[in-house]
Amino acid sequence: MARPIILGVVGDSGAGKTTLTRGLLRVLGDEHVSRLNIDDYHRLDRRQRAEAGVSPLHPAANHVDILTQDLLHLRRGEAVLKPVYDHRDGTLAAPVYLRPTRFLLVEGLLGFHTETLRSTQDVRIFLAPHEGLRRAWKVKRDCTLRGYTTDEVLRELDLREADAEHFIRPQQAAADIVVSFCPDPGGDPARLGADVILRDTLEHPDLSALIEGDRGPTLARRENDLLLRIPGDVHPEHAAELEEAVWEHMTFASHLRVHRLGEFTVGTDLRRSASLAVVQVIVLFHLVHARAALASGQAPSVRLAPRAPTGADSALHA
Amino acid sequence: MARPIILGVVGDSGAGKTTLTRGLLRVLGDEHVSRLNIDDYHRLDRRQRAEAGVSPLHPAANHVDILTQDLLHLRRGEAVLKPVYDHRDGTLAAPVYLRPTRFLLVEGLLGFHTETLRSTQDVRIFLAPHEGLRRAWKVKRDCTLRGYTTDEVLRELDLREADAEHFIRPQQAAADIVVSFCPDPGGDPARLGADVILRDTLEHPDLSALIEGDRGPTLARRENDLLLRIPGDVHPEHAAELEEAVWEHMTFASHLRVHRLGEFTVGTDLRRSASLAVVQVIVLFHLVHARAALASGQAPSVRLAPRAPTGADSALHA
Repeated sequence: MARPIILGVVGDSGAGKTTLTRGLLRVLGDEHVSRLNIDDYHRLDRRQRAEAGVSPLHPAANHVDILTQDLLHLRRGEAVLKPVYDHRDGTLAAPVYLRPTRFLLVEGLLGFHTETLRSTQDVRIFLAPHEGLRRAWKVKRDCTLRGYTTDEVLRELDLREADAEHFIRPQQAAADIVVSFCPDPGGDPARLGADVILRDTLEHPDLSALIEGDRGPTLARRENDLLLRIPGDVHPEHAAELEEAVWEHMTFASHLRVHRLGEFTVGTDLRRSASLAVVQVIVLFHLVHARAALASGQAPSVRLAPRAPTGADSALHA
Repeated sequence: MARPIILGVVGDSGAGKTTLTRGLLRVLGDEHVSRLNIDDYHRLDRRQRAEAGVSPLHPAANHVDILTQDLLHLRRGEAVLKPVYDHRDGTLAAPVYLRPTRFLLVEGLLGFHTETLRSTQDVRIFLAPHEGLRRAWKVKRDCTLRGYTTDEVLRELDLREADAEHFIRPQQAAADIVVSFCPDPGGDPARLGADVILRDTLEHPDLSALIEGDRGPTLARRENDLLLRIPGDVHPEHAAELEEAVWEHMTFASHLRVHRLGEFTVGTDLRRSASLAVVQVIVLFHLVHARAALASGQAPSVRLAPRAPTGADSALHA
């Protein structure tokens, strides 16, 4: 098959990677999307990590070389036998056969760690939510789905801080888009604000006409990027216009507009965030355009400037 | 690291693949030998095969594509995450990290199934023991180590016959050396005879001076190969001379001569077969010469004639 368009989503544990990609999966359709979670490349299981005193954020705790091999195979349209890490009990399990489809969504902790890894991904997103928000999300997720207690999660967060600083956050520099969700001052989880850095490494949809008034989204041109700020209290209609403006830049993909973007769950409640929807539609824009370019024989992503840091497969922390 | 020299040993289940490679491992040394068992690439576990009515000999029951990927990586000196099939209970387990060393011994059912697979292996051995001998070996092994009953093994053998005929035996055509052990008429397992076809695809050590007398080994030149026949009742001294003659062709590897070749076990008894020792030393000759050629910058194996069948990645059964 033709090679897949690969989206990379990187961010610390609990940063909202799966929430972002789940919405894209819903829109693009199960049959066209394969997913790869980099956590499956953990070299050590939960018990071994505890014994060795190593966090899952550390490259040495992961098969970075095998992940690189597999992404290169998948990018060539070849299937791989993907390892499996079971988050429910923290054990390693038998691998599964993964065949790439039209789109491959890759999410994890170390997706932009080396230049070769970075080069496999057509669109690169880094999620850097407000730290208080991330901790709250992580506690909720790990306690409900992964069998941890709140105390264990908080202790883990402290233990991981050095590796997060050293290995995770520097990857922000390699992203095309950096998204920082911030909490609603009133505490309403559906009213997330977002600062979205749109780097000049990709050609983004023109949103300038939509930016107006005092309380709505703002767009600022900076040296190497645009900063789009969507306040938590954005008027739903204003956010919808922003979303609409992006859809208008992909009329050939209008058949995808059957699903609502921005949905997420808090516990078992389904909520919708206007800023998440805007972020998702911008990512969708890039995936759909990359796919169209590939189908028409062009290079799928228009990178307008080299991204720092460069160098022969330099690890970002080096 | 420099790429490993790769030995491929193919033969039906119970043909003696592990017995052959175990002796080589002992001589070459644990630290220089990595092993890959193609059974680890089973796509279905024992229960799934039973439900689907498919034998492990069938290519569709194996990840032939992933095996090919992994052998290509290993041949380039790159580590792989090798899947694991547990023969004791017939289940698939978490993969293990395999780093190639100086020599890689690959054994299994389908190692010569496609041209790409064949091309990864420097020296290719096919084991085709007398069928009665293979059945006896398989029953003994499967009942003691793999938890089968004798009835189950015999039923399996019948069920597998069509696939053995269709997929396993045709691979004989792709081997450099074909070994057919035959039983001692008196039933002594240590007195195995062997017919060894030495194809002109490799440059074999000259053994002609050693062939003499009526009851000893014979060597016949045929159109595309030499046929070496070692009778089961070969005089131990005569077999030792044959072994010695091969060692003399690898004086630079004389440090390897600290271990006896030809050892194997029957149940818990350690036995020694003179013909197995001769076969092992011939294989060793090729591995050591390929390694020396690689180290000196030459192509590691001198293939003197193309091997049938050829063609772009043709499967042998096609």
